[in-house]
Amino acid sequence: MDKADIVKAIMDEIEKKQSPAKAAPQNPGQICGLTEFVGTAIGDTIGLVIPNVDNNIQEKLGIDKKYRSLGIVGARTGAGPHAMAADEAVKSSNTQLLKFEMPRDTKGGGGHGCLIVFGADEVSDVKRAVEITLATLPGFFGDIYMNEAGHVEAQYTARASSVLAENFNAPLGKAWGLLSACPAAIGMVMSDTAVKSADVEVVMQCSPAKGTSYSNEFIIMFSGDSGAVKQAAMAGRDIAVQLLATLGSKPTSAGTPYII
Amino acid sequence: MDKADIVKAIMDEIEKKQSPAKAAPQNPGQICGLTEFVGTAIGDTIGLVIPNVDNNIQEKLGIDKKYRSLGIVGARTGAGPHAMAADEAVKSSNTQLLKFEMPRDTKGGGGHGCLIVFGADEVSDVKRAVEITLATLPGFFGDIYMNEAGHVEAQYTARASSVLAENFNAPLGKAWGLLSACPAAIGMVMSDTAVKSADVEVVMQCSPAKGTSYSNEFIIMFSGDSGAVKQAAMAGRDIAVQLLATLGSKPTSAGTPYII
Amino acid sequence: MDKADIVKAIMDEIEKKQSPAKAAPQNPGQICGLTEFVGTAIGDTIGLVIPNVDNNIQEKLGIDKKYRSLGIVGARTGAGPHAMAADEAVKSSNTQLLKFEMPRDTKGGGGHGCLIVFGADEVSDVKRAVEITLATLPGFFGDIYMNEAGHVEAQYTARASSVLAENFNAPLGKAWGLLSACPAAIGMVMSDTAVKSADVEVVMQCSPAKGTSYSNEFIIMFSGDSGAVKQAAMAGRDIAVQLLATLGSKPTSAGTPYII
Repeated sequence: MDKADIVKAIMDEIEKKQSPAKAAPQNPGQICGLTEFVGTAIGDTIGLVIPNVDNNIQEKLGIDKKYRSLGIVGARTGAGPHAMAADEAVKSSNTQLLKFEMPRDTKGGGGHGCLIVFGADEVSDVKRAVEITLATLPGFFGDIYMNEAGHVEAQYTARASSVLAENFNAPLGKAWGLLSACPAAIGMVMSDTAVKSADVEVVMQCSPAKGTSYSNEFIIMFSGDSGAVKQAAMAGRDIAVQLLATLGSKPTSAGTPYII
Repeated sequence: MDKADIVKAIMDEIEKKQSPAKAAPQNPGQICGLTEFVGTAIGDTIGLVIPNVDNNIQEKLGIDKKYRSLGIVGARTGAGPHAMAADEAVKSSNTQLLKFEMPRDTKGGGGHGCLIVFGADEVSDVKRAVEITLATLPGFFGDIYMNEAGHVEAQYTARASSVLAENFNAPLGKAWGLLSACPAAIGMVMSDTAVKSADVEVVMQCSPAKGTSYSNEFIIMFSGDSGAVKQAAMAGRDIAVQLLATLGSKPTSAGTPYII
Repeated sequence: MDKADIVKAIMDEIEKKQSPAKAAPQNPGQICGLTEFVGTAIGDTIGLVIPNVDNNIQEKLGIDKKYRSLGIVGARTGAGPHAMAADEAVKSSNTQLLKFEMPRDTKGGGGHGCLIVFGADEVSDVKRAVEITLATLPGFFGDIYMNEAGHVEAQYTARASSVLAENFNAPLGKAWGLLSACPAAIGMVMSDTAVKSADVEVVMQCSPAKGTSYSNEFIIMFSGDSGAVKQAAMAGRDIAVQLLATLGSKPTSAGTPYII
């Protein structure tokens, strides 16, 4: 084996380690005896519960006293997939979303991480919400495409629930889509292409100086007829992936694409 | 070949890959058939055009309807060089700068990326502005010096145009300079040295908590007689490079120094 | 030696280089002839002085004219340890803390860097403050635990001085503790556990969207009887380290733990 072979083998290892979402450890069988621990998932995501939150902390967080139990999901990489998964979780559990915060993170990438807090009266309810979030999360990484220069994200739902409605202007029970690209410049062409491809209404728009935590992303969210929303998400995603490819290698999905 | 040789060879590769601006792919001959694509440059910079922007997007961005065509330049690494290049572009094209945003980026480094939008009535005009920006950009990376601990940047123009005037307090048509250093502490000594070295007026000053997107930089911009501005830029740059060297290896230019 | 051995050796090297605080060069004997240079320390920390600051810069910074001499400490990685060290420095020198800023940094990690400015009438005083900060700093990295997924930080003092009082709500002369964890989710369980373990009062609480520079951290600071503060710091630290371990390898201290 010669030097070039070895260098290539190692550089491949490094690429794998540096790709933020792909590199995320997933330890479903991780042994952790703590009752607060629920599980982990892609993106350095951790799921936790506090069965009976301390009054002092509850007050500092401005959380209503009726939410004695908190479910917590946080990640280094990803906010869009987590918003989608949390939306499913609230739909299917007796909980309320109390916080959705977006640190400027992604371990050197250009996007966000997240901190999500669910509240309920019973610990079994928040635990269920955290479990659903962790279980559905990998699916929502399917339309995240990355290379060494940036990323493209598409999300789509036929029926938005309260998490998307309260945080991202989705009309409750209606179709809603999200497109995001880094570097942000790509996101502008992506957005223009998306809204021209189908009859959708832009309900929210973010850029490095507006609505993000100074991430290097241009983001649009849109609603409309479910076919139109899906069409717009696909059109925007496809042009953005082509543009991102001009800055490096072919962007690859962090999971299995679901918007098809 | 023994193990130590191999390790050294590979660590050199990794250094190269991790140096943000140096690692930036430059694919001038990149084949991309999209009409929106103009080109790429150092710093993961991409140049794009939207010939006829969608009304919905235009409104969300608060862009005057007379700017039907948009030229877009964005990067993971760099805001200073892009401001200089965009200033040249607006000087030499029939366009207007509509946005200059600074994400907290640089792919794990301590500085900014950028998102720049030019507007015009004709797509040929914005395309020209993007082309000039991409073409002049590498020159403005010449006085960016980096090592594994941070970076130092110096910029200088004898005649500032509208981009620098509207965004960075440069007196129109007069000499203007910029100095930035990361970690920010170095930038304070750099700034003090610069303004003591020549008769210049500080027109803008930024630090992690003021005027930056929480980047780890201390920045000053200054104007005055063109000889004085150049002298201040050189004096600040030179002490900052010496100080940065105490935290790691000898800082190296990301191009060919032009302030000489 | 076979390929697997080589790959492992090199990946170990890379881990070392990428661990933000550990990778920080420490060049106590670094030769730098500049009178402004004081020294360097862990976390890409640099210590500097400006004996007689320029009036123009002083005004831009809003610094009272009586502080002619400035002492400056800045880092890519770390704000908590620097706050502790600066608190010691002000206690033991004839200086005043003028600025404590927290860039969103840590070289790809999820936390903060810092920029600290001390002021005095005499350069010998600010130099002394910088020297004390650099000398005591490594000790305060002792209860920072890191792995590839994030970090946990604990700090404790039996007697807070003005830096902690003015910037972090510590009661002057009383016991004060800090706990921080990344990803932020871990910090919520850490905080709940800490305040339940001992009779302490939460004096400050930060999260990605509140009180941080969009870092991926959940932070609490607390006061009380010195035994209680220490107990809370240890209880929070210990559960956070266990939780962080579920996302990757066993977190290791960046120095020698001091809260024991």
